[in-house]
Amino acid sequence: MANLTLDEPLFGTFVFYASVLAMKTLFMSIWTLRHRLAKKIYPLPEDYERRGLKAKPIGFIDEDIERVRRSHLNDLENVLPFLIIGFLFVLTEPNIVIAKWIFRLFTLARFSFTLGYLNGIPFLRGICGFIPGMLCNVVMTVMVMRKAFGNL
Amino acid sequence: MANLTLDEPLFGTFVFYASVLAMKTLFMSIWTLRHRLAKKIYPLPEDYERRGLKAKPIGFIDEDIERVRRSHLNDLENVLPFLIIGFLFVLTEPNIVIAKWIFRLFTLARFSFTLGYLNGIPFLRGICGFIPGMLCNVVMTVMVMRKAFGNL
Amino acid sequence: MANLTLDEPLFGTFVFYASVLAMKTLFMSIWTLRHRLAKKIYPLPEDYERRGLKAKPIGFIDEDIERVRRSHLNDLENVLPFLIIGFLFVLTEPNIVIAKWIFRLFTLARFSFTLGYLNGIPFLRGICGFIPGMLCNVVMTVMVMRKAFGNL
Repeated sequence: MANLTLDEPLFGTFVFYASVLAMKTLFMSIWTLRHRLAKKIYPLPEDYERRGLKAKPIGFIDEDIERVRRSHLNDLENVLPFLIIGFLFVLTEPNIVIAKWIFRLFTLARFSFTLGYLNGIPFLRGICGFIPGMLCNVVMTVMVMRKAFGNL
Repeated sequence: MANLTLDEPLFGTFVFYASVLAMKTLFMSIWTLRHRLAKKIYPLPEDYERRGLKAKPIGFIDEDIERVRRSHLNDLENVLPFLIIGFLFVLTEPNIVIAKWIFRLFTLARFSFTLGYLNGIPFLRGICGFIPGMLCNVVMTVMVMRKAFGNL
Repeated sequence: MANLTLDEPLFGTFVFYASVLAMKTLFMSIWTLRHRLAKKIYPLPEDYERRGLKAKPIGFIDEDIERVRRSHLNDLENVLPFLIIGFLFVLTEPNIVIAKWIFRLFTLARFSFTLGYLNGIPFLRGICGFIPGMLCNVVMTVMVMRKAFGNL
């Protein structure tokens, strides 16, 4: 068993990148809020009422806010599975060098994805972002699945 | 290493609040369903067909249902990261008293958030809900990051 | 404590089904992409621009794509909690036979759910899919909560 202490090199590395990615994902909420406050577009009728503004319909879509919300959702779809599958991956005692590079590459890819999404740069969002991030997740998941195979 | 048994006081406390929060998050699905059935507004065309009703368009937004769906999404954005980062936080052997209060405060804050969201009370939703919840997550994440720093 | 190695039978079984479910959830992104490319309906204006197409509005809803996106969201709402609560459940040393059947049933139910959602078959989606999946999660959560009760 990989020892679950931060002194254990691979687990420590996982925890570091996991905390960076968790922080980045939490930050998306703040970023949505920032756009909402700047543009005075709120999620619920009572938010307009309190400020004495005319309410926009509840499904109103503003492009800037929608970009942040969608890249946030994409983080839920990719970063949260990474945090879980990455942890299980560490427990399967993979090659340390390969595992560390997967963690680093994934982290880089997700920052690139968000940068590309928010600023409308498809190259950063897709080729440098979503695709390598997805590959890291798939590779880890396959490796975990192979090690656990037989435990049906 | 914090021992991963329920006899270990901090881990046991984490697991208790984690299970309460997981239950609360699962419950949001049921709550959406309850509104859908009461209002006869379903997610897919075949749901109307089976009941011999005229289908509403697939993107139809009803305010009550939308409130539940959005506070559910907000749980995915905040409670799921808590469940993961809180677990890593326990493994970094934090001060037990501080850690327990973070878990309790977060749990309280998320119930307040949902109550405020569903009933249109911005004070419960923001000041007593979203903000302290987010702070708990950020504080834990920073503490984990600091302990793991150096493992690049 | 349940030993966190794949040699430990229950943990090994959990890890196997967890990896299958994680893969299935990741795959939903690819499936959305496939529909987007086939139908030439993209999420952002710059995606149309690059291809020299007239952009659809950012909130444009296509039924096929929307089905995949919603069943993906439903996976985030159910599979991600399973991955976390299932792990905590293993640590509470449950009856191995019961636990293994919960993992198997949940996995089957989620595949049924997706099949039913994408192909418009309410029976596979609800009775064989969402409901047994939700029950597995609720049962595990209650069992974890009971074992951790007292650690307030």
